[in-house]
Amino acid sequence: QDSEISAFELQQVLDRVVSQRSDVKTDGFSLETCRSIISLLDMDGSSKLGLLEFHHLWTKIQKYLEIFKSHDSDASGTMSSHEMRAALAEAGFQVNSSVIHEIVNRYADTSFAIDFDCFIGCLIRLELLFKMFRTLDQKKEGRIQLDLQQWLCLAIN
Amino acid sequence: QDSEISAFELQQVLDRVVSQRSDVKTDGFSLETCRSIISLLDMDGSSKLGLLEFHHLWTKIQKYLEIFKSHDSDASGTMSSHEMRAALAEAGFQVNSSVIHEIVNRYADTSFAIDFDCFIGCLIRLELLFKMFRTLDQKKEGRIQLDLQQWLCLAIN
Repeated sequence: QDSEISAFELQQVLDRVVSQRSDVKTDGFSLETCRSIISLLDMDGSSKLGLLEFHHLWTKIQKYLEIFKSHDSDASGTMSSHEMRAALAEAGFQVNSSVIHEIVNRYADTSFAIDFDCFIGCLIRLELLFKMFRTLDQKKEGRIQLDLQQWLCLAIN
Repeated sequence: QDSEISAFELQQVLDRVVSQRSDVKTDGFSLETCRSIISLLDMDGSSKLGLLEFHHLWTKIQKYLEIFKSHDSDASGTMSSHEMRAALAEAGFQVNSSVIHEIVNRYADTSFAIDFDCFIGCLIRLELLFKMFRTLDQKKEGRIQLDLQQWLCLAIN
């Protein structure tokens, strides 16, 4: 109606598209993932995605889908923590073992598998966190300093 | 079976209890909220809640339920951003306007209302973030320093 897509609308669109695929497993995109996507890609501060922003998202999801499929070596439709580490490296995210551990804790199901919607949620969140770090580390010292309210503002998301 | 409650089991328990109430609105606890609850209260590192830990949770939810109801001045069963600010203050969380803004962005629905499960999710998350900050700010300087991997580890959750 307003040619912009809200987080709620994005959830419906993504679920409809992904549910038609048989090569990746999903139990539906969370609203949280859709909000992260909008935080990352919304350039005009509307809290919605315009046409160009939606096009960026589409390109990104295609790229991540390729990475997901090429690293799903047992064709389970999900990522094991071992497959996940390699997939993240290919996507350009260099993370240490502690971060992988937190990712599995946060995104995997009871059998330690990460399905496609959680995979996208995780990569989008990592992109957002790398971007926030670069923004905060203005002097490029490799470290950031936060007071309590700044910490809450950033980490509550 | 193992007398410990996992995040998945906690979600079922909380949904069952809250769905019986007519004074608070909810569309079901997210797995994310249940994971935050376990991160906050799990003292023995089992990633599950034992009996004593579950008792702590119960006391906490009762307390937050009282705060929710006493600040829901229009008896809508949800918190407006105005009601939310007062409720957070009563719960002991002093946060500035930027944090409130992020909380509404993160936890409210399209009509800017925060339902009961999101309210609990928010307060548990705030408790966790206050606790993390205190742990990281060992010299009590009111600020923390993080490198990229530390930042990812903490903020991915």
